[in-house]
Amino acid sequence: MNTFGHLFRVTTFGESHGPAIGCVIDGCPPGIGIAPEDFRADLERRATGRSRYTSQRREADEVEILSGVYEGRTTGTPIALLIRNVDQRSKDYGRIADQFRPAHADYAYWHKYGIRDPRGGGRSSARETTMRVAAGVVAKKWLAQRGVIVRGFLSQLGDIRPQGFDWDVVETNPFFWPCTEQVPALEEYMKALHKSGDSVGARVDVVAEGVPPGWGEPIYGKLDAELAAALMGINAVKGVEIGDGFAVAAMKGTENRDEITADGFLSNHAGGILGGISSGQPIRCSIALKPTSSIRVPGRSLDTEGAAVDVVTTGRHDPCVGIRATPIAEAMVALVLIDQALRHRAQCGDVGAIAPRVPGGTFSP
Amino acid sequence: MNTFGHLFRVTTFGESHGPAIGCVIDGCPPGIGIAPEDFRADLERRATGRSRYTSQRREADEVEILSGVYEGRTTGTPIALLIRNVDQRSKDYGRIADQFRPAHADYAYWHKYGIRDPRGGGRSSARETTMRVAAGVVAKKWLAQRGVIVRGFLSQLGDIRPQGFDWDVVETNPFFWPCTEQVPALEEYMKALHKSGDSVGARVDVVAEGVPPGWGEPIYGKLDAELAAALMGINAVKGVEIGDGFAVAAMKGTENRDEITADGFLSNHAGGILGGISSGQPIRCSIALKPTSSIRVPGRSLDTEGAAVDVVTTGRHDPCVGIRATPIAEAMVALVLIDQALRHRAQCGDVGAIAPRVPGGTFSP
Amino acid sequence: MNTFGHLFRVTTFGESHGPAIGCVIDGCPPGIGIAPEDFRADLERRATGRSRYTSQRREADEVEILSGVYEGRTTGTPIALLIRNVDQRSKDYGRIADQFRPAHADYAYWHKYGIRDPRGGGRSSARETTMRVAAGVVAKKWLAQRGVIVRGFLSQLGDIRPQGFDWDVVETNPFFWPCTEQVPALEEYMKALHKSGDSVGARVDVVAEGVPPGWGEPIYGKLDAELAAALMGINAVKGVEIGDGFAVAAMKGTENRDEITADGFLSNHAGGILGGISSGQPIRCSIALKPTSSIRVPGRSLDTEGAAVDVVTTGRHDPCVGIRATPIAEAMVALVLIDQALRHRAQCGDVGAIAPRVPGGTFSP
Amino acid sequence: MNTFGHLFRVTTFGESHGPAIGCVIDGCPPGIGIAPEDFRADLERRATGRSRYTSQRREADEVEILSGVYEGRTTGTPIALLIRNVDQRSKDYGRIADQFRPAHADYAYWHKYGIRDPRGGGRSSARETTMRVAAGVVAKKWLAQRGVIVRGFLSQLGDIRPQGFDWDVVETNPFFWPCTEQVPALEEYMKALHKSGDSVGARVDVVAEGVPPGWGEPIYGKLDAELAAALMGINAVKGVEIGDGFAVAAMKGTENRDEITADGFLSNHAGGILGGISSGQPIRCSIALKPTSSIRVPGRSLDTEGAAVDVVTTGRHDPCVGIRATPIAEAMVALVLIDQALRHRAQCGDVGAIAPRVPGGTFSP
Repeated sequence: MNTFGHLFRVTTFGESHGPAIGCVIDGCPPGIGIAPEDFRADLERRATGRSRYTSQRREADEVEILSGVYEGRTTGTPIALLIRNVDQRSKDYGRIADQFRPAHADYAYWHKYGIRDPRGGGRSSARETTMRVAAGVVAKKWLAQRGVIVRGFLSQLGDIRPQGFDWDVVETNPFFWPCTEQVPALEEYMKALHKSGDSVGARVDVVAEGVPPGWGEPIYGKLDAELAAALMGINAVKGVEIGDGFAVAAMKGTENRDEITADGFLSNHAGGILGGISSGQPIRCSIALKPTSSIRVPGRSLDTEGAAVDVVTTGRHDPCVGIRATPIAEAMVALVLIDQALRHRAQCGDVGAIAPRVPGGTFSP
Repeated sequence: MNTFGHLFRVTTFGESHGPAIGCVIDGCPPGIGIAPEDFRADLERRATGRSRYTSQRREADEVEILSGVYEGRTTGTPIALLIRNVDQRSKDYGRIADQFRPAHADYAYWHKYGIRDPRGGGRSSARETTMRVAAGVVAKKWLAQRGVIVRGFLSQLGDIRPQGFDWDVVETNPFFWPCTEQVPALEEYMKALHKSGDSVGARVDVVAEGVPPGWGEPIYGKLDAELAAALMGINAVKGVEIGDGFAVAAMKGTENRDEITADGFLSNHAGGILGGISSGQPIRCSIALKPTSSIRVPGRSLDTEGAAVDVVTTGRHDPCVGIRATPIAEAMVALVLIDQALRHRAQCGDVGAIAPRVPGGTFSP
Repeated sequence: MNTFGHLFRVTTFGESHGPAIGCVIDGCPPGIGIAPEDFRADLERRATGRSRYTSQRREADEVEILSGVYEGRTTGTPIALLIRNVDQRSKDYGRIADQFRPAHADYAYWHKYGIRDPRGGGRSSARETTMRVAAGVVAKKWLAQRGVIVRGFLSQLGDIRPQGFDWDVVETNPFFWPCTEQVPALEEYMKALHKSGDSVGARVDVVAEGVPPGWGEPIYGKLDAELAAALMGINAVKGVEIGDGFAVAAMKGTENRDEITADGFLSNHAGGILGGISSGQPIRCSIALKPTSSIRVPGRSLDTEGAAVDVVTTGRHDPCVGIRATPIAEAMVALVLIDQALRHRAQCGDVGAIAPRVPGGTFSP
Repeated sequence: MNTFGHLFRVTTFGESHGPAIGCVIDGCPPGIGIAPEDFRADLERRATGRSRYTSQRREADEVEILSGVYEGRTTGTPIALLIRNVDQRSKDYGRIADQFRPAHADYAYWHKYGIRDPRGGGRSSARETTMRVAAGVVAKKWLAQRGVIVRGFLSQLGDIRPQGFDWDVVETNPFFWPCTEQVPALEEYMKALHKSGDSVGARVDVVAEGVPPGWGEPIYGKLDAELAAALMGINAVKGVEIGDGFAVAAMKGTENRDEITADGFLSNHAGGILGGISSGQPIRCSIALKPTSSIRVPGRSLDTEGAAVDVVTTGRHDPCVGIRATPIAEAMVALVLIDQALRHRAQCGDVGAIAPRVPGGTFSP
């Protein structure tokens, strides 16, 4: 179960401090132009060390394409991507090899497998998400050729929420924050947080614009269900919302429904998905990420012999993993979309144009 | 994609107003005692007509076991369950056959398939969830034999939240509400709602106690990811939380982590899942359901020719679909758990007892 | 694992002497015209009782369509098909309920599940193949719309092989035999066989004409690999060949290769498949079926207590199951083809026409 | 569809003359001891260059373990294996880049994908099978710990068949031939073949001893069906038999059935599989491999522009690919067995010992 997707299938492998991490993308349509440098932008966005507000570990991630691309184009055969791990300082983690770090996967892995690779969190490290981002780059390329754009932003940091929204500023600050005026305050917040040795949670929103109506499968392969799995499967995520999310619990039917006119939908409470199938409106997903569990403030736990210990994590860690989750969440959304698009084409490739189709509109927060 | 699960696989079929609905349960362990009457309790809990606060449609759902059970025990071959549809008044729906009801799947189905069965919502009707509940009964039986109990309650109705919590009262009122004192107020609320012709959203919590540590698969088959898909795939659900859910976005690492002692975990913010694997603590999931889209208050939309129409739904409908979602959500959680349990046994059946294992504790809201 | 196919998915259920057998077809393209009477011809061809040379059991198989079809056309939702079992004389099988019939699945089922439904062979009965044939009817319809014709014939009965070949006569005799002159001899052979209480094996060939080049997936989803699984999975099959099959072991490369000219391939040793992908030539598969294991000649075995017994099967059984395997094998080939066609469309739907494409030609034995 | 298996899942990647080939093994049980040198023996057995009777290409295949193994034991996370391609002389293949080699996958790939990597056959090269053998090594280890031994031999080379059988000599000659006396004749045969520039087909048998009764799943996941797919999916295979295979077509029921006594089965015509489930007897599979298509004798074909060409393959190629298919076929059988074993444990892990279980016996040809 290290494979994601039904037709556009991504299998990742690798431990945080093993020789390498990588992935195999199977089922990719042939003819897509792909080069090693295509991966750089998104990997850089995800990388720790991107700013002083995320982990100090420097990952000089260069993707090697091992297969599936010939003369710069995908051939339809498996695309294997490899990144060598070059900066793993395993000694940093030595003292926790025999301890169960609170809120980490250690205790659960131990009971499942009876063995675990403790170096840097092994397989449960967020390092694995690097390959999700890499696979997402291929998916985004194919989607972009069809007019589908997937992008995200940080919509909450601790208890701070955006006081404005502009897509154009999201990539201009290290927080993927949509409101420039708040950036200095975020910097102060993170500085204080780092000093305290504590960490904080965050919320990320991802929007997909340009998705045509019809992607998704009713019942168990619903577009929103697969988005929920994809996003909940990101490390540290504890909640997923589509459209208005939990706010719908307190809403009336007259408030919540999105009325339809020939000029388009009058609102988008549904987040672009009806009955598990895209409606043509922008798809909106939100996730909540818990605060980093690796913190310098000591926490009570046990070691593998059952003795009580105080756990202190001294390695390089993000005080807020949520920040760099933005490109990871985008990648997961893109992977779901391409997979659903291919499945839709398989089953319904013969379905002709059905009138009326109303304009889908753009995202507004 | 009408199949749920990897090893314990449930395939449902049937339209709301077709001849029948049913399911096939494949991969069920042999030797489980199953009789037609075992399905009654949960189907009754889910049934519309259960109280005057849910749809007036009376579903006299009697399950016929067509296969997979011999002399009262499962044989390991596919278990087919069938329920004939006996009370479908299709004429109720005649006027909306050519209209796209706002917030319904009509528009999306139309664009996907170029054809749809409009009778009672066809495949997109909540009627389909009857078979999820039926399949869940089998899963619950197997789980109960291993000490795993899955149960849920309504944790929000509109803007009303429980002011007390007692498992023992949940099944004594028609709202699955954990606080008896509030029941009269809920009845008033629903009466006013029904009068207004409007509907309202809700929130449901499901708790699984007794799950041992080790169920779940890291990365893409995470226990929480599969719970998220299972729950988001229920009709009308727009949000899923595990443990503290969206509240984690504003939490500090020191608040959020669950410290471990020999006597057990000191808290359960994680909702019983660490790194995608069960920790042995109670698993807690929450979902938000949007208000019923079928309401009597007219809404703007288009017909299949593109002309503007005012849609009014006059069929029998729940003013709050969230109430009877409680047994559906329980069923989906049970289906995920049995599937993960079988997968865990497949891969890790040889892993011996690993010390120390701390007590998992019970649920407290 | 009672589901066949990846995108066009068929799940069957039901025991030979249970209340009913049925199947669910998921992933079917929308818009295909389907009516209950469409199933009759192939079910009749498969039916026992078709002639006095096959089992005397009369199966009046009427298919009920429970879902997935609206106003005569498929809707893209699951198509459930049901056949009630009306002629099961379970008492015929009473004496073998506690015995392991030699060459039957009894012993293996017993050890796998610890329980088995002995009535008429339960799930392991060839009765299950009825639903494969029914599902195959839907697949054949879709394929025929694209010019793909799947049909089979009996190519060996015991040691008798056809001395001529004419597609037009195959359906005119109860043996699916391609040479009319031999039919009286076959009748004599079967009469003597029936008298002796013994049974005999057979060989069936299936040919698919009109398959375009490009269907199939290299490596593990090869078209020939999936055909092999589909055909080997038919009851009593012990061998599968594609094209020249086992004869290739003794061939030279110069004999075996199919040279290509602008007018088409000069031969078809490969059976229409190269590298796991269709070449555009007719696809040819052959299967060998073992003699019916249920015979009147006593055989040594054990009962469930371990005591030695002489097993005699007195129920109604085909002296040659191979004969009626013809429509079953056609169905399995059709199911593989539609599934591969949909998968091909998913991944390679954008691949334009590639020159040169040579004529595929027709089948010659 | 470059993934094999349901629970023990092997995904391979890589082209013959790309940077590397590799595989990811997912779902492997934890705790199996694995080291890079464990792969050597089987890779050497498969390697071209093993003797002068197979291709002269020297593949110095050293497996690098990239993940999933910690301190010499599997951890339950994905095991990635990598082999760099070091001896690819792509210029050898230059002249055929624009030609469709007869009986090769070129024509089919071209029409499927609209693009292909012509270097050394790209993805369709037998080079890919190296990773199947590597994955098979892990499977064989786990199986051997449970007393299951999988091994094969060459049972036909052109029209030569073994005149004796001794497991002990199979590994002492370069032909995997079970009869020492014939080895000089085989050498002469191959020498003459090589001189002629032609190639020849072969037949390989694989036997699995020690498989307990109960592995396999009825209907579509039958053990024999999955073996058939696994074996037919090996390059150049055109036929698969289980047990007596095609010979059953001419057999009587009294000849074919395997009677049972308390001392064991009296014969093994079924090849160890009944109703798709292992019976406890040795499992026997046979495959036929076509002669190598890459030969020096010119063959008629077309180029990608449609012009007639004479194709001559001058690269290093085996005159009989069947010989080194022996370890590949063993690997595929082992991969099917471990996957079925894990699935059996998942569903039927609770089924207790059922009496009587008769001795399974050993293989005799």
